[in-house]
Amino acid sequence: MEYLVMLPGPTNVPNRVMNAMLAPIINHRSEDFRILYRSIIEKTQRLFQTQGDIVLLSSSGTGAVEASVVNLIKKGDKVVIPVNGEFSTRLADLIDSWGGQSIRIESPFGENPPFEKFEEVFDKHKDIKALYAVYNETSTGTTIRYMDKLGDLCSRNDCFFIADSVSILGGDELPVDKWNIDLCLTASQKAIAAPPGVSPISISSKAKKYIQENSAPILYFNLKRYFKYYQEHYETPFTPALPLCYAYDEALNLIFEEGLANRIERHRRCADAFYEGLGAMGLTPYAKPDARSNVVIAVNYLPGVDDKKFRDLLSNEFKILIAGGFGNLKGKVFRIGSMGEVNKYHVVRTLSAIESALRMMNIEVPSGAINKAITKL
Amino acid sequence: MEYLVMLPGPTNVPNRVMNAMLAPIINHRSEDFRILYRSIIEKTQRLFQTQGDIVLLSSSGTGAVEASVVNLIKKGDKVVIPVNGEFSTRLADLIDSWGGQSIRIESPFGENPPFEKFEEVFDKHKDIKALYAVYNETSTGTTIRYMDKLGDLCSRNDCFFIADSVSILGGDELPVDKWNIDLCLTASQKAIAAPPGVSPISISSKAKKYIQENSAPILYFNLKRYFKYYQEHYETPFTPALPLCYAYDEALNLIFEEGLANRIERHRRCADAFYEGLGAMGLTPYAKPDARSNVVIAVNYLPGVDDKKFRDLLSNEFKILIAGGFGNLKGKVFRIGSMGEVNKYHVVRTLSAIESALRMMNIEVPSGAINKAITKL
Repeated sequence: MEYLVMLPGPTNVPNRVMNAMLAPIINHRSEDFRILYRSIIEKTQRLFQTQGDIVLLSSSGTGAVEASVVNLIKKGDKVVIPVNGEFSTRLADLIDSWGGQSIRIESPFGENPPFEKFEEVFDKHKDIKALYAVYNETSTGTTIRYMDKLGDLCSRNDCFFIADSVSILGGDELPVDKWNIDLCLTASQKAIAAPPGVSPISISSKAKKYIQENSAPILYFNLKRYFKYYQEHYETPFTPALPLCYAYDEALNLIFEEGLANRIERHRRCADAFYEGLGAMGLTPYAKPDARSNVVIAVNYLPGVDDKKFRDLLSNEFKILIAGGFGNLKGKVFRIGSMGEVNKYHVVRTLSAIESALRMMNIEVPSGAINKAITKL
Repeated sequence: MEYLVMLPGPTNVPNRVMNAMLAPIINHRSEDFRILYRSIIEKTQRLFQTQGDIVLLSSSGTGAVEASVVNLIKKGDKVVIPVNGEFSTRLADLIDSWGGQSIRIESPFGENPPFEKFEEVFDKHKDIKALYAVYNETSTGTTIRYMDKLGDLCSRNDCFFIADSVSILGGDELPVDKWNIDLCLTASQKAIAAPPGVSPISISSKAKKYIQENSAPILYFNLKRYFKYYQEHYETPFTPALPLCYAYDEALNLIFEEGLANRIERHRRCADAFYEGLGAMGLTPYAKPDARSNVVIAVNYLPGVDDKKFRDLLSNEFKILIAGGFGNLKGKVFRIGSMGEVNKYHVVRTLSAIESALRMMNIEVPSGAINKAITKL
């Protein structure tokens, strides 16, 4: 039975992309693979809007996050990181366990710290090695809307700028070079709408130089090896997840057939429609208005609505998958992934099912939500 | 165009396994996934012949190798490792770069050190933390035939025993518990005949206890997290490569339909046939007789046979993929992956093409090789 997958990753994968996985097995040390991999790298550069290097890891997005830390951070390095959710906390913890010294700019979940806080930290510390920012905090549906200013700040302070863009790249603005991002990382199964298992990273020339001169003490995520293999052979150092490479390549084709700007605009419209429709049902977003995500819609539960019962109804009776809350937010919010292939059909079907499920649970819901949502689409 | 994939990984993948990747996308935090993952874990325990824990990483085999090092080895730990090829060298280098202190037992490529060398090292050093052995050295077609004795030696010396079984598990004997292996690691795309991208590891209760009490400073390959997520939810800590999980599960089904003992016997017969047939053509194996692999057949080139020209002929005219030599062996040997689905058809077609290609290159080849090979099948 096929679900409508409205999760914040994995998402619905178009048939063309699924079927691409059936391409016959090839030698990953042959011209067949080199042609595929060069095509992937060049298209990924377009997607990231970068002239920098691209590496495709065979791992989940967490692998890409880890690669960004183990290749760049050394013992005692000061690293600034805004923390306001599950994934930013986990990233800050990783930086510390790896030997870095995180300087956490905390803000309540669902809000971003005022930009001035970053300026204050940089004024106070003159030896900051890197700033890590989770562009879209998947656990709270919160997006940082001043990434460009963070990039400028890092440039002025000669500090690396790393954007964890796992759940957002392909679904919202992200011009990597324009925003001065040194390492930008994402995963295949979110707004790119491919199956999970491969994760691209972009690397600026400045970061590349540092990484080549300071080889990391690990092997699988050693970016220096990836640079070498690509430069010498257009290959990866380790056996790539071939079927997922084909699928990812086809997902990139779909992105450029639609046009990146159109795709981002579609995500914005669908998010607006979700917020409008859910608001009309009396539901409120978890994130503050200036921080609301266009790809992960996190919504507060109405009092008395049981998370498990609600999501089981959606899954069992309506065949729609949405996510619950993470950590402290478990049972308090539900989250809709409005990403990848999301369009009018997905929005209307999901809103309709939510409305029906709430009524089935004897919650009074005002009429007219879908009509209001449609005005945004 | 579909190749006959006679590489030492990836290998030919049966259609049933390829098609399993098309299963609809599910939530990896749901009962749908838990049922799949439990089935994978239980079948992998049978395949490894272990009662220990199993973790399935979404990475290539190198990721599993890395996990075995970063979770077990601390700064200054003494680690014994036989080194006689590309992969054992790389593993020893990783141990050192991670902070361990490798004690390398070197032997010429294509040979294994006498077992007594290990006893000598353990007599000399009373504080050895672990012994790592590459069970099958893919770069030279060399298999260690005294893994059971290494396991006993480790048990007697209270030392961890780690078997890098990436290119052999599923194609030769490997009773993990019987051989006292603490960590055994492999990959999906070798003798298991699934697509590349997932890598199972088994962990003994002794190793598990150590890993839980000594959390590694990394995230993606942090085995402690995998134990916790499996114990609490039958899930993985990070988004798994779902299509590859389905494929791997189906590959396991095929293994047990055939029977593991039958499968190992089939690999042995096919290897015997390859060695017999190639020998009848006047070609010699690279590995010494007591160390010859049943899964990777490494063969010395006859004088005057150009590696690229020979393999291009096989690939372009016969649609058969075989591998060249690695590192120092580049141009000196070719390697046939005789693993996974390999059967009489694969052996005969490959031998026939090799015979024809050599003749096309004006090399004199005695007749009758295939008839001799067939007697072994």
